[in-house]
Amino acid sequence: MRIMIDICYDGSGFEGFATQPHGRTVADTLSAALEKIYKQKINIYGTSRTDSKVSAKTQYIVFDQPFEIEPSKLVKAINGTVEKSIYCKSAVNVADDYMPRFDVEYKTYKYTIAKNYSPELRHLKYFVKNKLNVSVMQEAAKHLIGTHDFSSFCAANTDVVDKVRTVTQLDIAETEDDIVITISGDGFLYNMVRIIVGTLIVFGLEKYSPDLMKDILASKDRGQAFSTAPAHGLMLEYIELKGSYE
Amino acid sequence: MRIMIDICYDGSGFEGFATQPHGRTVADTLSAALEKIYKQKINIYGTSRTDSKVSAKTQYIVFDQPFEIEPSKLVKAINGTVEKSIYCKSAVNVADDYMPRFDVEYKTYKYTIAKNYSPELRHLKYFVKNKLNVSVMQEAAKHLIGTHDFSSFCAANTDVVDKVRTVTQLDIAETEDDIVITISGDGFLYNMVRIIVGTLIVFGLEKYSPDLMKDILASKDRGQAFSTAPAHGLMLEYIELKGSYE
Repeated sequence: MRIMIDICYDGSGFEGFATQPHGRTVADTLSAALEKIYKQKINIYGTSRTDSKVSAKTQYIVFDQPFEIEPSKLVKAINGTVEKSIYCKSAVNVADDYMPRFDVEYKTYKYTIAKNYSPELRHLKYFVKNKLNVSVMQEAAKHLIGTHDFSSFCAANTDVVDKVRTVTQLDIAETEDDIVITISGDGFLYNMVRIIVGTLIVFGLEKYSPDLMKDILASKDRGQAFSTAPAHGLMLEYIELKGSYE
Repeated sequence: MRIMIDICYDGSGFEGFATQPHGRTVADTLSAALEKIYKQKINIYGTSRTDSKVSAKTQYIVFDQPFEIEPSKLVKAINGTVEKSIYCKSAVNVADDYMPRFDVEYKTYKYTIAKNYSPELRHLKYFVKNKLNVSVMQEAAKHLIGTHDFSSFCAANTDVVDKVRTVTQLDIAETEDDIVITISGDGFLYNMVRIIVGTLIVFGLEKYSPDLMKDILASKDRGQAFSTAPAHGLMLEYIELKGSYE
């Protein structure tokens, strides 16, 4: 009786998705709600870890129901129980051994840079006062599309050995208020999106030729890329599952 | 040495703009920052009161400087001192007797109804699960444009005697995620925008003919209009000053 739910959440009040020794997490908060519903402890398995302060428009979670609640009733039960910063969008019964984490086709993250400071959106956008040249950012970004060793864009404190990933999309769009960076790929290293964004911002300041991005990537050295952009501008926008649960 | 500043703020953490006996207000928080800057108490005068939880993209405030700080330096000093939920956009020297409150050409409020629940935007949008018919809302809204006695759309607990106001714009636009109601006028009664929005929502549910709005307006009876929409969907979007300070 494994079931998969799709949730979205406001990450600004959480220390990330996954359970950890200190601080409130999305997983713990959701687990506590499920414990209230099922009157027993429920182990949950997510699809994508998100860092502290990062929000998500989608996050697939599976768990085994100790007794059956219909998907549509479960959605209502969760939304009636859990705090308003988490919202369950849907639920579907899946195979007993289904783990969405191993079924990801691609993920899409969106990072929002605010050109003007908006107090009411300060938890969702990174305000950059300096003018950024989006054309230069776009030129630099091109070098990252495709399958590469992304060691230069991976936080130092990681155990992952294989740092080859495929970035299928890296778009930078400018609106009146924002610069929005959309990045899709089969998987991302620890802090990879935020290091890419932080590095693109430096290119946007017109300090370097966009071709330097090629060298940064080729160096496989985190020290060659620039600062990690802050977490609060990041949104896990979309997860495409291969759909093998059907 | 009167100076006028233009601020924006996230109202979600405040009990409104104006000083009051209980709770944190925008005016008190800003006054405390100015007291730090000028090392003495500063009396401030705003342009438009906003209710508890209501945000503003603009709010003109005047005060008399005990010693002169240049406008551009004052902007930096305020933003370096006040909490991040308040942001000073600009400052300009004005005549010693200038009160922006008496110089308003018109104000524009925006009310956002979310069609889908977004946890990260829950403090800025009012989520309405039921489908609303925007055409019916637009038909009903037409009756409110112009100069009318808006007693039906004024909270009961008010001392204001003259309830005639002029609404110059009342637009309802639908996007994929939201229904946005934009309303402009020379002035608004207590809770007027929120009662208009709450009433338009009932029309959107197709419970009544849009012509009923004419009767509600003509009755001059608050009891004839429908519920007040919650504060958190409301934004004071814009204030046009006649500009007599120049």
